[in-house]
Amino acid sequence: MKTIVSDTYNVYIGKDVFNQINDYLASNNYSKIFILVDENTMQFCLTELIARVEKLKKAEIIETESGEENKTIDICIQMWKALTELKADRKSLIVNLGGGVLSDLGGFAASTFKRGMDYINIPTTLLAQVDASIGGKTGLDLDNFKNQVGLFSNPKAVFIYPPYLNTLSKKQILSGFAEVIKHALIADENYWNQIKNFKPANPDWEGIIYSSVVIKNNIVLKDPHEKNIRKSLNFGHTIGHAIETFFLESELQPLLHGEAVAAGIFCEAFLSYKKAGLEHTQLDEICDFLLKFYKPVNFNQVIPQRLIEIMEQDKKNENGQIMFTLISKTGNAVVNNKCSTELISESFNFYQMRAAMVASDL
Amino acid sequence: MKTIVSDTYNVYIGKDVFNQINDYLASNNYSKIFILVDENTMQFCLTELIARVEKLKKAEIIETESGEENKTIDICIQMWKALTELKADRKSLIVNLGGGVLSDLGGFAASTFKRGMDYINIPTTLLAQVDASIGGKTGLDLDNFKNQVGLFSNPKAVFIYPPYLNTLSKKQILSGFAEVIKHALIADENYWNQIKNFKPANPDWEGIIYSSVVIKNNIVLKDPHEKNIRKSLNFGHTIGHAIETFFLESELQPLLHGEAVAAGIFCEAFLSYKKAGLEHTQLDEICDFLLKFYKPVNFNQVIPQRLIEIMEQDKKNENGQIMFTLISKTGNAVVNNKCSTELISESFNFYQMRAAMVASDL
Repeated sequence: MKTIVSDTYNVYIGKDVFNQINDYLASNNYSKIFILVDENTMQFCLTELIARVEKLKKAEIIETESGEENKTIDICIQMWKALTELKADRKSLIVNLGGGVLSDLGGFAASTFKRGMDYINIPTTLLAQVDASIGGKTGLDLDNFKNQVGLFSNPKAVFIYPPYLNTLSKKQILSGFAEVIKHALIADENYWNQIKNFKPANPDWEGIIYSSVVIKNNIVLKDPHEKNIRKSLNFGHTIGHAIETFFLESELQPLLHGEAVAAGIFCEAFLSYKKAGLEHTQLDEICDFLLKFYKPVNFNQVIPQRLIEIMEQDKKNENGQIMFTLISKTGNAVVNNKCSTELISESFNFYQMRAAMVASDL
Repeated sequence: MKTIVSDTYNVYIGKDVFNQINDYLASNNYSKIFILVDENTMQFCLTELIARVEKLKKAEIIETESGEENKTIDICIQMWKALTELKADRKSLIVNLGGGVLSDLGGFAASTFKRGMDYINIPTTLLAQVDASIGGKTGLDLDNFKNQVGLFSNPKAVFIYPPYLNTLSKKQILSGFAEVIKHALIADENYWNQIKNFKPANPDWEGIIYSSVVIKNNIVLKDPHEKNIRKSLNFGHTIGHAIETFFLESELQPLLHGEAVAAGIFCEAFLSYKKAGLEHTQLDEICDFLLKFYKPVNFNQVIPQRLIEIMEQDKKNENGQIMFTLISKTGNAVVNNKCSTELISESFNFYQMRAAMVASDL
């Protein structure tokens, strides 16, 4: 069992984390407990949780649907109404059992219901275990703009059970792995060297989760409300979010968050080479690594001008200028970089060209 | 000019408050400024504000409709969409120019847009000047449940211009005056003795606003998130909110907030006599005073059982038990009182009986 201390809450990681959940519930006298699940965690995760945590046996279950396309204000309204009908009060608890979409939604609904009730996260996807479940960001998409509505509002605790990863598809694992790559690239060259040699056969997930949570937590503690250094966690996300939004708003098959972020890291590594002093050998290293694991996003389906329009809504922007987090070398982020729309378009071309080279190799 | 210091912001009160607004905007370099108005403040307050505050001349105006029935999530969604279209970012400012409905809505929309942008309040009604604009409560009604969704989120500053009260009807002034009565009854016997002798002919509004803001601010500073003593500000509001909600959800003419609160204070003064040691002479004094100013709510239109059902959603409740703030004497509140539904019903009968006696006197 590993414990990481954040500002107002602890993150527990390990196979015996259910003991910690039992202890937490025993020391907090909640009037009612609600477990938020989606169709996947309902089927694959809930039974084990309830079997191992006595106090959750009588919890009310609220079910929502998985997928970014369901992280909407309409679903949140349904959740507030369910809490009203089930007579939740300010001394009730919401348990978010799911991935990042679910904890973003459940965290926001809890933090705003009757001006705030407690919530805890039990992340079940790699993406949520290494990233989304910690740091206190909650949010909803509005007209497909990612997290256009949201709050910084901390959970009371986060309980990470690595064996839940066995319930995931390879595609979902890769989605979360993009955030692991990001953590290494922005903050820790040694971690990057370790990740570079990642072997999918028998990964040490508990070690990876721990390293990623430590990196994220250290950054968040320095700048909880993203005034400055926390923006480093957005590396790959300016373009990544735009690609994700583009696929959400079009009739195309939606991408998983991490699939879009992997493409975003690729393009923003190119911008880092052009603007932040990233060496070409390191750019190549990053691009080769990403192409080894991620099937390239089909840019023939994408309208570059629309991507830039979407980026004009990015939360890091100031005075109408699109702002990027870049890396000056592997393991070191630099925030608040302006890039021209020409250069951004050039990064899309770079991505397409490199992706095409790999495709022709196959 | 009077200044009251709260935890993270200042409240400025006076005829020359526009100077303070100019200073505030000069020392904060906002990327864009939005002024939220309703049809009343658009017509009666905005021109003077813009004429006297240079930096607001180029502000974007967002118009909403007055009235509690418009404090909904739908209107908030419209506001988020307007902010998106007008390219508001995290370094933009919202100026709430209006009453409590408007600042509750605007404060919530600002605090959740892109996970939080700044807002300031310029309250224009007596209710907002003495109560709603300070203390950091924001909120929306959900299915007519008052403030079922909301946040504790402080404005960056509050600027109170007493002459805006000249734009109000007598009915609106009385609505705000109910909160003044509440402040006196829960916290300051001397203030109550002053208010008891209130003469509507030529009131010292600036003095009254100052006294009320000082009382509210002192309570909020001790308990910002309403864990305990802040509940004292809810005197009159458990029943008051239920009456207000009942009129909102029925086809009846909606009551103003303070009209419902005045009836709530009446009933809860009776509960205070029954449960908290309030002397009968003081109960009489309060009831006589309220009946002098407020036309009684017509209880023949009200279904008492429904009022109690609505109270079961009150935010102060714990474990399904309706909890009241009562007063043990004029100027002293006692929080966390349980009252049986029989006693609550008795308070409605008491109110009807006393109201009928006055009606027959007229």
